[in-house]
Amino acid sequence: MKVKRSWTQQRDAKNARMEKVSSLLNGKFAKTEDAKEILERLIEPNDKVVIEGDNQKQADFLSRTLANVDPERVHDLHMIISSISRPEHLDIFDKGIASKIDFAYSGAQSTRVSQMISSGRMKVGAIHTYLELFGRLFIDLIPNVVLVAAEKADRNGNLYTGFNTEETPTIVESAAFKNGIVIVQANEIVDQVPRVDIPGDQIDVIIPADKPYELEPLFTRDPQNITEIQILMAMMAIRGIYEKHNVQSLNHGVGFNTSAIELLLPTYGEKLGLKGKICRNWELNPTPTLIPAIESGWVESIHSFGGEVGMEKYIAARPDIFFVGKDGSMRSNRALGQVAGQYAIDMFIGSTLQIDKYGNSSTVTAGRVPGFGGAPNMGSNPTGRRHSTPAWQAMKTTDNPLDKGQKLVVQMVETFGANKQPVFVDKLDAVDVQKEINMENAPIMIYSEDTTHIVTEEGIAYLYKTDSMAERQAAIEAIAGVTPVGLRSNASQLQDLRNRGIVALPEDLGVHRGEAKRSLLAAQNMSDLVKWSDGLYNPPAKFRSWS
Amino acid sequence: MKVKRSWTQQRDAKNARMEKVSSLLNGKFAKTEDAKEILERLIEPNDKVVIEGDNQKQADFLSRTLANVDPERVHDLHMIISSISRPEHLDIFDKGIASKIDFAYSGAQSTRVSQMISSGRMKVGAIHTYLELFGRLFIDLIPNVVLVAAEKADRNGNLYTGFNTEETPTIVESAAFKNGIVIVQANEIVDQVPRVDIPGDQIDVIIPADKPYELEPLFTRDPQNITEIQILMAMMAIRGIYEKHNVQSLNHGVGFNTSAIELLLPTYGEKLGLKGKICRNWELNPTPTLIPAIESGWVESIHSFGGEVGMEKYIAARPDIFFVGKDGSMRSNRALGQVAGQYAIDMFIGSTLQIDKYGNSSTVTAGRVPGFGGAPNMGSNPTGRRHSTPAWQAMKTTDNPLDKGQKLVVQMVETFGANKQPVFVDKLDAVDVQKEINMENAPIMIYSEDTTHIVTEEGIAYLYKTDSMAERQAAIEAIAGVTPVGLRSNASQLQDLRNRGIVALPEDLGVHRGEAKRSLLAAQNMSDLVKWSDGLYNPPAKFRSWS
Repeated sequence: MKVKRSWTQQRDAKNARMEKVSSLLNGKFAKTEDAKEILERLIEPNDKVVIEGDNQKQADFLSRTLANVDPERVHDLHMIISSISRPEHLDIFDKGIASKIDFAYSGAQSTRVSQMISSGRMKVGAIHTYLELFGRLFIDLIPNVVLVAAEKADRNGNLYTGFNTEETPTIVESAAFKNGIVIVQANEIVDQVPRVDIPGDQIDVIIPADKPYELEPLFTRDPQNITEIQILMAMMAIRGIYEKHNVQSLNHGVGFNTSAIELLLPTYGEKLGLKGKICRNWELNPTPTLIPAIESGWVESIHSFGGEVGMEKYIAARPDIFFVGKDGSMRSNRALGQVAGQYAIDMFIGSTLQIDKYGNSSTVTAGRVPGFGGAPNMGSNPTGRRHSTPAWQAMKTTDNPLDKGQKLVVQMVETFGANKQPVFVDKLDAVDVQKEINMENAPIMIYSEDTTHIVTEEGIAYLYKTDSMAERQAAIEAIAGVTPVGLRSNASQLQDLRNRGIVALPEDLGVHRGEAKRSLLAAQNMSDLVKWSDGLYNPPAKFRSWS
Repeated sequence: MKVKRSWTQQRDAKNARMEKVSSLLNGKFAKTEDAKEILERLIEPNDKVVIEGDNQKQADFLSRTLANVDPERVHDLHMIISSISRPEHLDIFDKGIASKIDFAYSGAQSTRVSQMISSGRMKVGAIHTYLELFGRLFIDLIPNVVLVAAEKADRNGNLYTGFNTEETPTIVESAAFKNGIVIVQANEIVDQVPRVDIPGDQIDVIIPADKPYELEPLFTRDPQNITEIQILMAMMAIRGIYEKHNVQSLNHGVGFNTSAIELLLPTYGEKLGLKGKICRNWELNPTPTLIPAIESGWVESIHSFGGEVGMEKYIAARPDIFFVGKDGSMRSNRALGQVAGQYAIDMFIGSTLQIDKYGNSSTVTAGRVPGFGGAPNMGSNPTGRRHSTPAWQAMKTTDNPLDKGQKLVVQMVETFGANKQPVFVDKLDAVDVQKEINMENAPIMIYSEDTTHIVTEEGIAYLYKTDSMAERQAAIEAIAGVTPVGLRSNASQLQDLRNRGIVALPEDLGVHRGEAKRSLLAAQNMSDLVKWSDGLYNPPAKFRSWS
């Protein structure tokens, strides 16, 4: 039965809202001091509102402004924030401005997120990965209002997001083409933007920010904090995984373990004759510790999810390697980067806080709900993948004609973490956290079934070769050191696993423990990285210990 | 060791190439008659070249022109084409202009593709899904030249791709930010585009096309060809899957089976009281057979990968449902649509040509290599997914605290196909095709492990409930009719599977075979669809049998 209705209700509602701010706008432009009034007139109770909370770039002028609106006028919002990064992202729940949230990552705010969920002050729709959350913006979480940050806006409303384009085009698209309202804070209004990252006709309101948006250097690791145990693990990874499986395209997680690998490529890797054979194509935020490998000619290309503070000039001078626009500045794109990181690379290697005896891992520990960002996407075996690469195909272990390869998913951890707690545990804290905050499933970051290798200071477990859960557990025990899980291993079991190539110790890989010295790192400290970069890398102040 | 090199070699090379055509350009604009010369000067031997070959929109002026370049000047190209849709996509291999290809789908050209691979005339890098291929454009298949099609271009080079935006922004981005050359054929040059889909500074050369680009109506199914068996299957799917599992967000594959479901929602679905409870949010090309469900108020939103010929005006008049820009025309986006289709929906339901006794399915049959497009992405269980929905969670079958839900992946087939051949087979043709053309893995479209349900005219197999391969095989046999696979089933086995809810026959679902009549369809033919649309749907000529 045909329904009688208007089919332009959303457009009409948007036009009516825009009418309410017309007196405050000059074209698309509003005054900084009118920001609160603009939000109060444009946002309505129960709206779905996206705030750009990238890993790095924060629409913080708009989020601070939203935290100051009158809760009598604006309340019970359903927030969609990919990274809950700032206090005011949560203040709005304390004030009743918002009541529900869907998010992917909460990093620095994870303890407070946990408390607010427990206390019932914040209702969680779901904890996603970035790609899931982006996808739902086009399906069942279509936003009414999107608040984003741009570096520059021109008189026609075109946006320049440049180096930190990240997720801006994706979240803007979800509103701009579905009768949503797109509000932008801009660092600067100019006559002409250096390049157009987002066309002006997708934008409704532009407000000059009170100060430039916040940026966090999240992916910078100072080489001076890399330990010799991490160097040993990095040597094992290079020989026992990168070289052995011919890993050409990859993503590195954030952490000192993978920074160590990056800094060994130009030294240890070069000595092994691996240059040009491994680690050629990267999906990676521009981590400074990769500079020596780039300068040594190891790297063919790097596509990035987002920027990294201090790397702007270096990247602009290396357009053969990075994705750079005609204006000379990098273009990042988190959605396309996550797609590439999921489907187009040989390997994801990262770290975690806990791994259980089965091989499931999580960064969720008691009292903290950080979410997982993109790790579960990249750290999973996408069963929809159909193209083959040598590394992927190397994971095929049977002659079954219907069998196929697998993505390499590597967890690299010391058996005891920074807090002296065992990383290998019988039960993940995540299982208890699930009950505490009443999640539908335990917050596992990477499942055992998706994990192909675990590297510790003891050795490498080649989990993809195991053909039963019992064997998988034995392989994990064999490299879990003196953790409760590791203590269950015994010498004969270990020998058997080594004989069958399921576990490798450093000596099995030709890795000499005595060689694992800090002198093997291509850069010892931040100053060395700056030198490698010909002075183009400009570390943030907090990393400038030498100056 | 720091290498001595220029880090702007790619940019310099691009500038040098552009210099070679400067005399043929007025700004970014070239003359139609210079197209061949432009391509001969800008494309160099061994280049990686993307030709836009969407499912629907074809950069056919540029592909026809490429097929006419002098093979002495341009040869051994490495082509990257998501859909090999046109003869000249293959002619260039016959002429030696190209030698290698990476692709995702070959549809209408699949027989010739198979022959050209067998004969060695065309070397295949890999057969991908769309998302894999898009991802690799940013990793290890970064193109030198990209050839795309736009509806309109303005004097500043801004492109309007409108209704058929599809993959254009994604493939342009891969070249525009990595020193690649972007060449556009435009149907029309205008002073100002209705909206900017791609900013002009991402574009290098614009050539007015000799005629508007080709468009294929690939997703149009005439209701008059829907059979009563398909209607019976559709009724079973609605009751036994959509209603049972509370499927709210979904994608329908192309075919009469799913068209039947679409046309039963306003009749059978309405009678069951399911309106507003299922099928609310869609990722779907705008299939005309969904018009009655939309007009009956079933559908909240539809995001689309691409357009569909004849649906332009209807969609423009329904911006509450579809993604429509300020200019009033739909915006499609294949990359974001595939992301949403993989990660943000409850269910994928489609059809196939063969299913083996284990539950693996493929559309590859002897002598044809069609590729799979997006089906393997959407038809897989993305193990990286972390958010839950009722339908997804319904697939959880154990109390294991580490267990989680699963995406519904449904295959819907008649036990014998259109060619009277059994769909259920002991061995897929794909296994032989793998050997014939020396593929690294058998070209499976959807693996058994990812498949949760199979629907036939006999009943539904709830594969997600099976806990062994033997049980899974028995469930498949039970609904495989009189195919060789089905004949292995017996009455007591069937009864046991029904008792345990692993197989359901129509009567178990409360579906009355006698009700499965064509009169139950909300539209009997194309003319009815036009009526439902208030005359806004304008079917392509070949579907206008009544006029």
